[in-house]
Amino acid sequence: MTDTIKARLHVTDALSAGGSVMLADDQAHYLRHVLRLEAGQAVALFNGRDGEWRAVIAEAGKKGVRLNLETQLRPQQPVSDVWLCFAPIKQGRIEMIVEKATELGAGRLLPVITRRTQMQKVNTERLAAHAREAAEQCERLDVPEVAPAVTLEKLLQDWPQGRKLFLCAERNDAPSLLAAAKGEGPCALLIGPEGGFAPEELTQIMALSQVVTVSLGPRILRAETAAIAALAILQSVRQN
Amino acid sequence: MTDTIKARLHVTDALSAGGSVMLADDQAHYLRHVLRLEAGQAVALFNGRDGEWRAVIAEAGKKGVRLNLETQLRPQQPVSDVWLCFAPIKQGRIEMIVEKATELGAGRLLPVITRRTQMQKVNTERLAAHAREAAEQCERLDVPEVAPAVTLEKLLQDWPQGRKLFLCAERNDAPSLLAAAKGEGPCALLIGPEGGFAPEELTQIMALSQVVTVSLGPRILRAETAAIAALAILQSVRQN
Repeated sequence: MTDTIKARLHVTDALSAGGSVMLADDQAHYLRHVLRLEAGQAVALFNGRDGEWRAVIAEAGKKGVRLNLETQLRPQQPVSDVWLCFAPIKQGRIEMIVEKATELGAGRLLPVITRRTQMQKVNTERLAAHAREAAEQCERLDVPEVAPAVTLEKLLQDWPQGRKLFLCAERNDAPSLLAAAKGEGPCALLIGPEGGFAPEELTQIMALSQVVTVSLGPRILRAETAAIAALAILQSVRQN
Repeated sequence: MTDTIKARLHVTDALSAGGSVMLADDQAHYLRHVLRLEAGQAVALFNGRDGEWRAVIAEAGKKGVRLNLETQLRPQQPVSDVWLCFAPIKQGRIEMIVEKATELGAGRLLPVITRRTQMQKVNTERLAAHAREAAEQCERLDVPEVAPAVTLEKLLQDWPQGRKLFLCAERNDAPSLLAAAKGEGPCALLIGPEGGFAPEELTQIMALSQVVTVSLGPRILRAETAAIAALAILQSVRQN
């Protein structure tokens, strides 16, 4: 029981005292060949539902790694209800959005295709893997969902009645996100592509009653900076 | 006068109506061979003092690019007085701090060597070049200064009397930066290395009367995320 925790992994299996978990493929490879762990060494497991568990390697072989669950290290915490809707940007920077949004506690990441979006194809699985890895590293107890990419029209059409949508626009006359975000209830951020939303898109967005247009300050921010800054401000105001 | 602005460059020369500027080396190469600009085409120049100017290429040759200054596009704005003190982190991520801090309007970037700092050598010139490039892209009218790296001891010893220093610590019981940053006057953020400050360093820091310990929320943030998030929150509170 005095061993250090050597790694932190997200799994899909249920976690409970006396149970065991079998890891295969990437995760088994990572424990055996990257970290070179052996039977008797401990890792932490979480699944987004059952908290974080200390698990000790019982067997590490070609078929995979079997771990025995020992004690719960932390109970599950409520999952964050903040969504981040963002226009996909080029590789390298889109991963930055996913990684930082995970660290800053976004609950759901929604790629949105807009007129000026350069990247029309989004590899949701790759982004989900990034989110999982970021969650493992930042000690979150859940992994944010990466939703399949949708068009802006579709996003607005299906927007839930009770969820505020903060449109982060490059408009100095809008109230600051800091002021507008005060309060409670489900909410989301909407960040445009490099080059911004097209005028007709802005009209469409602002026609939605759940939308609140906000400013992120006097400077021009890159798309990924806007996403990270907005999430940091929102989480700080809401104390999540 | 109807030509579009093709680029935005930071220069050190004075800028005024009727003047001209000679660009050499990297900037001349960039205009001639990367953007393939020719005589008659316009760029924007700024120097952190005289606002932003429209400048038209008069001559582009082997000796460099000569530009004639036409009209002032924007007057100079007051330079931001927020400093960001940060422990250098590995390549790729330290550039992210510099780029995002520039976008978010930091006035001065101070690399600080701490006990747990992995990177003991800081290439100040390379970071300054990153800051300049980020300023050119984000439409700032000045470039934040990248100070030479100093040890934490030296930073604290020379700390200016009238400048608050917000220590961003991984402590949930500290007041939030959002609450603590309200008010006015010169201030700075201090972000630790991966792994945090050593206990004796924390004692040293907190002994300084200008220091206010703050929390960035319940999650563990990577060093660069903490720097970006803290700056976003601070600028939002101070409406800079």
